[in-house]
Amino acid sequence: MKNLIIKNAAELVTCRGNRAKKGREMSELHVIPDGTVVIEDGIITAVGNSQEICAYLDESNYEVIDASGKAVLPGFVDSHTHLVFGGYRAEEFSWRLRGDSYMEIMQRGGGIINTVKATRQASKAELLASAKKRLDSMVSFGVTTVEGKSGYGLDDETEIKQLEVMQQLNEEHPVDVVSTFLGAHAVPNEYKGREDEFIDFLIDKVLPVVSERKLAEFCDVFCEQNVFSVEQSRRLLRKAQEFGLGVKLHADEIVQLGGAELAAELGAVSADHLLQASDAGIKALAEAGVVATLLPGTAFSLKAPYARGRFMIDQGCAVALATDMNPGSCFTESIPLIFALAVLYMNLSIEEAVTAFTINGAAAVGRADKIGSLDVGKYGDVVILEFPSYKYIPYHIGVSTVEKVIKRGVLVFDKVKLS
Amino acid sequence: MKNLIIKNAAELVTCRGNRAKKGREMSELHVIPDGTVVIEDGIITAVGNSQEICAYLDESNYEVIDASGKAVLPGFVDSHTHLVFGGYRAEEFSWRLRGDSYMEIMQRGGGIINTVKATRQASKAELLASAKKRLDSMVSFGVTTVEGKSGYGLDDETEIKQLEVMQQLNEEHPVDVVSTFLGAHAVPNEYKGREDEFIDFLIDKVLPVVSERKLAEFCDVFCEQNVFSVEQSRRLLRKAQEFGLGVKLHADEIVQLGGAELAAELGAVSADHLLQASDAGIKALAEAGVVATLLPGTAFSLKAPYARGRFMIDQGCAVALATDMNPGSCFTESIPLIFALAVLYMNLSIEEAVTAFTINGAAAVGRADKIGSLDVGKYGDVVILEFPSYKYIPYHIGVSTVEKVIKRGVLVFDKVKLS
Ligand SMILES: [Zn+2]
Ligand SMILES: [Zn+2]
Repeated sequence: MKNLIIKNAAELVTCRGNRAKKGREMSELHVIPDGTVVIEDGIITAVGNSQEICAYLDESNYEVIDASGKAVLPGFVDSHTHLVFGGYRAEEFSWRLRGDSYMEIMQRGGGIINTVKATRQASKAELLASAKKRLDSMVSFGVTTVEGKSGYGLDDETEIKQLEVMQQLNEEHPVDVVSTFLGAHAVPNEYKGREDEFIDFLIDKVLPVVSERKLAEFCDVFCEQNVFSVEQSRRLLRKAQEFGLGVKLHADEIVQLGGAELAAELGAVSADHLLQASDAGIKALAEAGVVATLLPGTAFSLKAPYARGRFMIDQGCAVALATDMNPGSCFTESIPLIFALAVLYMNLSIEEAVTAFTINGAAAVGRADKIGSLDVGKYGDVVILEFPSYKYIPYHIGVSTVEKVIKRGVLVFDKVKLS
Repeated sequence: MKNLIIKNAAELVTCRGNRAKKGREMSELHVIPDGTVVIEDGIITAVGNSQEICAYLDESNYEVIDASGKAVLPGFVDSHTHLVFGGYRAEEFSWRLRGDSYMEIMQRGGGIINTVKATRQASKAELLASAKKRLDSMVSFGVTTVEGKSGYGLDDETEIKQLEVMQQLNEEHPVDVVSTFLGAHAVPNEYKGREDEFIDFLIDKVLPVVSERKLAEFCDVFCEQNVFSVEQSRRLLRKAQEFGLGVKLHADEIVQLGGAELAAELGAVSADHLLQASDAGIKALAEAGVVATLLPGTAFSLKAPYARGRFMIDQGCAVALATDMNPGSCFTESIPLIFALAVLYMNLSIEEAVTAFTINGAAAVGRADKIGSLDVGKYGDVVILEFPSYKYIPYHIGVSTVEKVIKRGVLVFDKVKLS
């Protein structure tokens, strides 16, 4: 691999730092005008003013990308997705549009159980192929690291199968995939009314395998009324921590259950959704340094009220943004859509939204020391826009402004070459 | 050019017909399961069941695309855009986000006058190059015909320049560009307070040239409080009709001024925006057969209430959807975003939204006899999705589901080849 110089960037948006940015820090992007970044063996070795850096480098030893007139940013981190799944639910989407109730949809075979069936039936090769296509699309939106969850198996075999697919994606696709075990995503029909036994099953039969085979870095749970209680969530996640996994929570999405407070209590790496999070819960997240991961695409799709992103930042939270890409409530991997929703409908500033998709996304998957900013020593994960400023990201509403994507120093997407 | 067969489509969505569909008709897509469409010399020569059609054809005389597992639709018509312009207004977008008032933005040099300045300064070659890039992006979203307006010159020289650029785009780019003269887009500084004189100027100095040189098919006006009155709009558009142009209106966007009523009175081909259209105005549009062109991207971007699309259809209107792609209020060419907004936030059914982007979009540019449906005798303008049903268009929220685009029988976009 040849080393790489990206030079003359109109704006080099460094997002400098190695931890989540909280509250007012989220506005600080540390932009270098006329900037250059140097990547050697996949690692950033210099960041700064173009003239200063290019003065002491022999450019003939490098591949050189001239980013004149273009903004350069850290690769985006999509820190909450469910990208490995079988089947689609377009029919169900149309039922929802015409106003069918949740119960009617369930009775017609819709809902998550539909995806569970299809994912159980799908072969590993099928899951791998469809997930790869989704990763390709994600890269085109500038994503260089993505979190992916299991949770469409709800049995040991399929949960493991999903995690194995993610392991293989990680090896075969340039995007880094961070795996999360979400066995407690829903209550499978076999365990209806016996939620505690299902938690026992996950703890006794699945977690040990996941841990031993290092199939996941995080454990997540859908803590929600009629799914898993705060107590059940706490029990599973504490065990996961004993097994050495970090923890995440689907928290306070539909009902104010205290998921945010639980995330703070456990020292989770992130609490996600948070549409209904209480003031106290939000304060607790801020104090505990738990990243509040907001998923406005899901709110948009479900016509739910958006999470209180502005309030969370004003309370000192570290906020991340992610797509929640999944086949039910939010089948989208569009970074520009989420970006537009965040700035237009959650009142984040453009700078805060950039932080939320870079260094704070990285923190939400426990990798703020390796990715999420253009700092010496970090991975050479870089996005080059077609336009001279990061301000074009939401301005070009819902349309990707990404021209090139570099993953660990290697060009993995180039819109110019494609056209 | 070799002739083309697209066969085995999981759904061949014909949108059959040669005029705008009104009211309940908008739900009728006329879908052929296992469908085939044949294109010869750019014109559709057969549409129907795959087995029936392929029985009598010698496939060796054709290029063949196997659309198994994929939905096939007419190319989309984006019937309201401002795609030729100089400069960008990303800064202004960020000012708007932080809550700056319209007046503050104007005083800082923002607003349409900013684009007018940049468009006046831009060379034809610059305008052509940037517009071509935008057309490329539009094609990737499945657009095979686009309407484009002048209106960033507001003087004879630049208005003509914009229209000449569109003429050249039409020759050099596969997408068909339908040109609209929108000299009355805003009042230029030179004419502030002398709106009637500006209308005189357009009538006396610009319209004759536009007409004689056949630079536009339609004349449009921004009929709005503090811009051009109903009376001024009527005067200009009647003259345009005398010159042989069809007419369109930017009507009732911000204030209920009676633009819809005027469009009906004049027999306009379309009335556009209509956020504030009155019940009587909507009824008048339905009765006069004026297409109601809705632009929910602009409402989304400006956080305005959406036009009453559901009500309009229920009142018997023919509704079209378009992007309004422009550098100020709505810098987007994303068909899937507009589609999602229409079905989620304007309560159109998926079928109605398909009609709105195909046959009704075609009617909104006066070409329902040539495009907008897969019927024998029409242009071979076809979109092939990656998925088996048109229902995936809004389901894959804000992400294009388009795999291939065929313009007059020629493959002009292919996602498969690109990756
Ligand atoms: Zn989720
Ligand atoms: Zn317009």
